[in-house]
Amino acid sequence: MLYFINDYSEGATPEILDKLRESNLTKQAGYGSDEFCILAKEKIKEAIKTDAEIFFVSGGTQANKIVIGSILKNYEGVIAADTGHISVHEAGAIENTGHKVFGLRSKDGKLAADDIKKFCRDFYVDVNHEHMVYPGMVYISQPTEYGTLYSKKEIEEIKSVCNEYNIPLFIDGARLAYAIGSSECDIGLEDIAKLCDVFYIGGTKCGALIGEAIVFTNKELSKHFFTNMKLFGAVLAKGRLLGIQFDTLFSNDLYKKLGKKGVDTAIKIKKALIEKGYELYIDSPTNQQFIVVDDATRERLSKDIGFGFMETLQNGKHVIRFCTSWATENEDVERLIAVL
Amino acid sequence: MLYFINDYSEGATPEILDKLRESNLTKQAGYGSDEFCILAKEKIKEAIKTDAEIFFVSGGTQANKIVIGSILKNYEGVIAADTGHISVHEAGAIENTGHKVFGLRSKDGKLAADDIKKFCRDFYVDVNHEHMVYPGMVYISQPTEYGTLYSKKEIEEIKSVCNEYNIPLFIDGARLAYAIGSSECDIGLEDIAKLCDVFYIGGTKCGALIGEAIVFTNKELSKHFFTNMKLFGAVLAKGRLLGIQFDTLFSNDLYKKLGKKGVDTAIKIKKALIEKGYELYIDSPTNQQFIVVDDATRERLSKDIGFGFMETLQNGKHVIRFCTSWATENEDVERLIAVL
Amino acid sequence: MLYFINDYSEGATPEILDKLRESNLTKQAGYGSDEFCILAKEKIKEAIKTDAEIFFVSGGTQANKIVIGSILKNYEGVIAADTGHISVHEAGAIENTGHKVFGLRSKDGKLAADDIKKFCRDFYVDVNHEHMVYPGMVYISQPTEYGTLYSKKEIEEIKSVCNEYNIPLFIDGARLAYAIGSSECDIGLEDIAKLCDVFYIGGTKCGALIGEAIVFTNKELSKHFFTNMKLFGAVLAKGRLLGIQFDTLFSNDLYKKLGKKGVDTAIKIKKALIEKGYELYIDSPTNQQFIVVDDATRERLSKDIGFGFMETLQNGKHVIRFCTSWATENEDVERLIAVL
Amino acid sequence: MLYFINDYSEGATPEILDKLRESNLTKQAGYGSDEFCILAKEKIKEAIKTDAEIFFVSGGTQANKIVIGSILKNYEGVIAADTGHISVHEAGAIENTGHKVFGLRSKDGKLAADDIKKFCRDFYVDVNHEHMVYPGMVYISQPTEYGTLYSKKEIEEIKSVCNEYNIPLFIDGARLAYAIGSSECDIGLEDIAKLCDVFYIGGTKCGALIGEAIVFTNKELSKHFFTNMKLFGAVLAKGRLLGIQFDTLFSNDLYKKLGKKGVDTAIKIKKALIEKGYELYIDSPTNQQFIVVDDATRERLSKDIGFGFMETLQNGKHVIRFCTSWATENEDVERLIAVL
Repeated sequence: MLYFINDYSEGATPEILDKLRESNLTKQAGYGSDEFCILAKEKIKEAIKTDAEIFFVSGGTQANKIVIGSILKNYEGVIAADTGHISVHEAGAIENTGHKVFGLRSKDGKLAADDIKKFCRDFYVDVNHEHMVYPGMVYISQPTEYGTLYSKKEIEEIKSVCNEYNIPLFIDGARLAYAIGSSECDIGLEDIAKLCDVFYIGGTKCGALIGEAIVFTNKELSKHFFTNMKLFGAVLAKGRLLGIQFDTLFSNDLYKKLGKKGVDTAIKIKKALIEKGYELYIDSPTNQQFIVVDDATRERLSKDIGFGFMETLQNGKHVIRFCTSWATENEDVERLIAVL
Repeated sequence: MLYFINDYSEGATPEILDKLRESNLTKQAGYGSDEFCILAKEKIKEAIKTDAEIFFVSGGTQANKIVIGSILKNYEGVIAADTGHISVHEAGAIENTGHKVFGLRSKDGKLAADDIKKFCRDFYVDVNHEHMVYPGMVYISQPTEYGTLYSKKEIEEIKSVCNEYNIPLFIDGARLAYAIGSSECDIGLEDIAKLCDVFYIGGTKCGALIGEAIVFTNKELSKHFFTNMKLFGAVLAKGRLLGIQFDTLFSNDLYKKLGKKGVDTAIKIKKALIEKGYELYIDSPTNQQFIVVDDATRERLSKDIGFGFMETLQNGKHVIRFCTSWATENEDVERLIAVL
Repeated sequence: MLYFINDYSEGATPEILDKLRESNLTKQAGYGSDEFCILAKEKIKEAIKTDAEIFFVSGGTQANKIVIGSILKNYEGVIAADTGHISVHEAGAIENTGHKVFGLRSKDGKLAADDIKKFCRDFYVDVNHEHMVYPGMVYISQPTEYGTLYSKKEIEEIKSVCNEYNIPLFIDGARLAYAIGSSECDIGLEDIAKLCDVFYIGGTKCGALIGEAIVFTNKELSKHFFTNMKLFGAVLAKGRLLGIQFDTLFSNDLYKKLGKKGVDTAIKIKKALIEKGYELYIDSPTNQQFIVVDDATRERLSKDIGFGFMETLQNGKHVIRFCTSWATENEDVERLIAVL
Repeated sequence: MLYFINDYSEGATPEILDKLRESNLTKQAGYGSDEFCILAKEKIKEAIKTDAEIFFVSGGTQANKIVIGSILKNYEGVIAADTGHISVHEAGAIENTGHKVFGLRSKDGKLAADDIKKFCRDFYVDVNHEHMVYPGMVYISQPTEYGTLYSKKEIEEIKSVCNEYNIPLFIDGARLAYAIGSSECDIGLEDIAKLCDVFYIGGTKCGALIGEAIVFTNKELSKHFFTNMKLFGAVLAKGRLLGIQFDTLFSNDLYKKLGKKGVDTAIKIKKALIEKGYELYIDSPTNQQFIVVDDATRERLSKDIGFGFMETLQNGKHVIRFCTSWATENEDVERLIAVL
């Protein structure tokens, strides 16, 4: 069975396992004060070419929950795409911190600056807005949950709306490697860092065993963030596990290389899909490729291929996903194309 | 510098690193549905000789937060020792879930069944108790934060009070290996499982990189626990990381062996301390040894030894801790004894 | 200036003030244990012709917050119309308890049973539903925020969906007097009580100074509700203030009479609006009447009449509201009609 | 039966009922924007002789919950006497907002500045304090739950510690009338206002039907407090009910007069108690008088007198409370004394 179900079905890039073994008995301070965390932070700061406060946590929902839950005030909510991860697939993790998620209509998984602007403007002109949840943050994902990318211009426009309403911009980079690894991406780590207040660099789906690096370029927002992490249950006694991984990922440009590998295999699949006449559900330049198939095709493909099932459309057809990653073998891609 | 500061300053027992490498490219389902998690659960159920619902999370505070936060009702609080981890060192993680921690006076880190009983009885006889937080759970640590152990009889008595007031008993086993690895421990995994409603088996401090196994022997309490884990940000996409570790720890009796190694080295240190006339702060049969020293001694020892500083007593003397673990080398113990 | 802005711009029906004065120095037990609360509960149970657990609180948002916050489990959310009060105008009071509000598309302020059914069915067929918020309750308002009414059949259908998915139905009756006071309402208090699990009878907008009576006909859901009220800050030391009011409102059929008066004046206005060629925004059979006006009309009317502004439509016209209540004078209605 | 059980067993001072009747049909804006609220705020500002942001809510637990819940940050807790209302009798209302209550040992219901200082100093010298709840506010009650009073000097000292640690001081004035009505009170409303950041003026126990006036003299802390009130369910549609009452209480020095009446009757009782040889439990200069009695006395007194039962001491004797209020009749006091 060919396996294109998701981007977290293997362990870690071998360099990480090597480093874990090599460092295994080195005695280190706990809770993220170890040498590896310190080193990893330095390397990330080099990569983003700006100063920042950096924290490592275990997973994406956790990163979203703590960042949003520690920044928003009681009376504020977070603006997100209605298809955003926090809107749908985090089991109410944000609401559990006491905050509303405003799920704005999105297109191809993306929020438009104009829609955010309209939302905020409408809020403040409403005479009853003191009886309503205040927009307190904007959350976007790069790449989005549908594999699409925001352009630099689009993020600049969103940031400009944020500035107008004095609310921070938070970018979920669970699959950030597959954004910066895409040839269609015109916004690199440096720009991301400059344009938002806080973002996270996904490790789990991009070569690590677990781990996300939360980067506050707006350092004001990171006050007492360690204690926030602790009270949300996110501090690891052996923080070294995260430090070692990000130290490795940000050495020798590995993070970007892994991302590029995931995207390259996906684009190969995309080209084959187009050539063979499959209907793309969305035009994705990253590691997730979505197509629309009928019952028969879905069944046929499922005999040899593991893929993700997303939803059944009103016309009865199905949206399915082929997902590659840093670990995808070219050989498997060839076999997939042969089956298609 | 000799390093006896804590029990989480190294990586993992080598068997775990081997298994990680060996399984690295095996494709597995996400979120804890992988083969390793399934296998690990089976092995734990064998070890505790009872049926149970088992879940793996990353750390101890997280385990405590989710278990307590998902079981208690709005109007309930949790009874704990005033020295318990949830009372002091979790930055309000429990209160953040909306619940009060009743910090009852403890002795040697332990709660007495009689004190719990008095607390509950006083609560229910108070005519105003509907205006107060209800006792909704009892939380104890085995071994305690001071290295001491509850006997089987003591836990039976506590459970009996719990039954009388119809509240569950939760045992924090962050260092459980060092309890069952101690020759003075008369209550093994089987008994623990029988006597409480839910407990967790600590991995992080007992040989794993990260990870705790939450075991519900009262399965009624575990309904929808996976979704609770998700909304608290505790579900790992690569759940295999936890499954692989617990699978390893519960193969070939490794968990108990690692615990025994940690205790044996500690007891060697304890004997030396007594012989050399040091004042024990507490009589601990497990991997943490506490002594009382004056300024001069503290300073002298700190030249060669890394140890934990706990508190300064009213008489000006200090409580310090030597902590061993599964990774402690006998050679280092000899050198420590020489310095002492 | 004629005042048709809302239904809470006066004090209380005079019978309540009389009763407050008459009882003023009678000494009573606190926190809702007074004779008046007991009496009021008996009278409400007579009116709904069924046994129930009844609690009095100060306002509607408070009632919604405590009922929802005390019934839902961590991983559950509440289904509501996207125009429902809890979806829009409670400043995140529900999310503040940790729960998501699912704002389903509504028509004329109403939820359709079929839409609720589709939502629940889609949830359970989703393979990822354990990563999502569970539907845990249905919330509807009778009358709705747009003055419309659910028929008995519609509520039966909704309840049937609730039963299918084993979730309770909660009815917000902030303006319930204006439902049962309407000639177009085919579902009285008795039926409401039978068809839902919990509802509240609005006092604040229906003749009282403040106060809502929360009625649990599904008594299982009301366990420890007093302590839930306390911890949400809703218990009044002088609970008598609420007991006296509901005792009065449920004597001599006063509640229904006050409702009828509010509706009758509104219907008089509605007829005049239609006759004079105004465009109704919605066909409301209760005390709120909504019309669509252009700029000029809005300005002209605002010279003599206080009315509510709801929103500006895409065509530039405005939705405004004339609201009557138990306190509306026929004379003012005549004058309003003259101005129209 | 003579009734000295508590200070909330009657309705309101008659001036309030008069004003309610007189204003009953006056049409007013909702949610606290009415003329009476505006007027009441002006009068309170005159009384405290300082500028402030003022908000009215329904009850004491509600006031405490919203003030504390809206000021504290995630990682902060509130320091209170272990006998403080928020520590014991609010059913976890504070913890429900996600915050820990640090119940410091108290004497006669009072916190000492030195103990607060020691607590804060110990916190910051602890190397692990980032793993602990930060002290974020000090809460005291004037008068205390045991009827005792802080002197001006004592509150100055407490405020000085607050300033040192940069945390606000919040004073619960549920019975404030009985502090300023006592001849032994050397700190009036003006001083209170100057010395703390926020306090509330109790209405419910001091002559009103319901209501507390929250006064922020540190206006920075009151930002968006209205929306905080809303999301905690505390905004009344008919805010006039609170405005009218505080307008009345702060006209003609009525608030202080009512307080004085409550204290004068209590002191009369206290003198009689001393003369007749009863053992005072505490030396209270306000409207609550506590004595220690044996079984026989308790039973004898309970035949004719309603009093509060507080607790049974270790020696088997009981602490009981005689409580007076603005409504206590001199005649009843004479009869009480006769029975004593």
